[in-house]
Amino acid sequence: MANKTLVIGNKNYSSWSLRGWLALRHSGLEFKEIKLQLDTPSFHREIKKYNPAGKVPTLLDGNIRVWDSIAIIDYCAVVAPDKFWWPKDMKSLALARSITAEMHSGFPHVRNHLPMNMRLNWHGTFGDKVQADIDRIDAIWSECRAASHTKGDFLFGGFSAADMMYAPVVSRFLTYNVQLGTTAKAYVDAVRQHPYMKEWYSEAAQEKDIVPMDEIDPGAKQLG
Amino acid sequence: MANKTLVIGNKNYSSWSLRGWLALRHSGLEFKEIKLQLDTPSFHREIKKYNPAGKVPTLLDGNIRVWDSIAIIDYCAVVAPDKFWWPKDMKSLALARSITAEMHSGFPHVRNHLPMNMRLNWHGTFGDKVQADIDRIDAIWSECRAASHTKGDFLFGGFSAADMMYAPVVSRFLTYNVQLGTTAKAYVDAVRQHPYMKEWYSEAAQEKDIVPMDEIDPGAKQLG
Repeated sequence: MANKTLVIGNKNYSSWSLRGWLALRHSGLEFKEIKLQLDTPSFHREIKKYNPAGKVPTLLDGNIRVWDSIAIIDYCAVVAPDKFWWPKDMKSLALARSITAEMHSGFPHVRNHLPMNMRLNWHGTFGDKVQADIDRIDAIWSECRAASHTKGDFLFGGFSAADMMYAPVVSRFLTYNVQLGTTAKAYVDAVRQHPYMKEWYSEAAQEKDIVPMDEIDPGAKQLG
Repeated sequence: MANKTLVIGNKNYSSWSLRGWLALRHSGLEFKEIKLQLDTPSFHREIKKYNPAGKVPTLLDGNIRVWDSIAIIDYCAVVAPDKFWWPKDMKSLALARSITAEMHSGFPHVRNHLPMNMRLNWHGTFGDKVQADIDRIDAIWSECRAASHTKGDFLFGGFSAADMMYAPVVSRFLTYNVQLGTTAKAYVDAVRQHPYMKEWYSEAAQEKDIVPMDEIDPGAKQLG
């Protein structure tokens, strides 16, 4: 049964891994985890055993290999089609696909200056470009919640692919105490309280390793 | 019927636009084009009329809005399900989703140093990071062609979503005369000769506008 293996990085830091892991948990399918320590010499050697592309997360499903968070999500959506992944009505589907893609290749300033680091609790200000990314994400979340016709606290009602893609941003906004509008703030709380997110946070809290490249300058008063 | 409008940038330069346009042409559905001149003051004003995210390509389908190349592809795949978008067998689907995602968020060195510019014909050498991106893309194309069980010259047999995502790279490799392995070279030729690609090239050739940010230093001997 459990012939699925998900190769991930440190739970405290690996934002892409979180997305793939949420997809696997959401699928309801059994899977094993292999955790590699990010940014160590052994990481680069080990990951190549599982994936020539050298990326986490990588899902091994028998003789099938899938990598990259959104690819794992879309693969799981085919393997476990009874779960909710993408909205059915075309207007919501269009919005879900668009904002998911925007997240996948965008928001470089939030990504570079606010690394995911679940154990950190930081207060300060943000540079203009970081703030512009934050404002755009706030607007996206508000648009999705306003457009959602289905019951539930997530972007399209129930927990779905779009929430998996934005989950690392939720974590960053909590870590860096980002000020948000009412709708976006409620959304952050809903994601943080989702059972799978709580499970990941709890496992991340047990990790002791430090990944220097994902730690901000402890004296920083402004990011970006 | 033709209530679909695709907002794109210059055909000579806009790599993301090419992908969305190929998806629309492949869908077989009628659509109108609105072309905006990239990197001009009017661009930023005009695009906001169609899309608050400020991105091309943007597809307007009645009261539905879709933006970002891969989102437009996945939207068209639902609107025109009789066309070939993604391979059916799970192993090929996993590979197609993975390499498409890898393209969507990756290859920054090829993207930054070898801007799409269809009218240019450049000869020279590449820096190590650009070359590493090129080598990875060559390996991906070879892996897909080796794994493809279906008839046809494209990554998964017939022309599909994966080819749309890699089409701008094909154009770059032609522009910058990139040396490739036999399989990758044959693939580049197949994409260049695809009727939709020929149509786009022919329309790009009629454009006269120069976008300075997408032009390389004419004296450059090495890129990257």
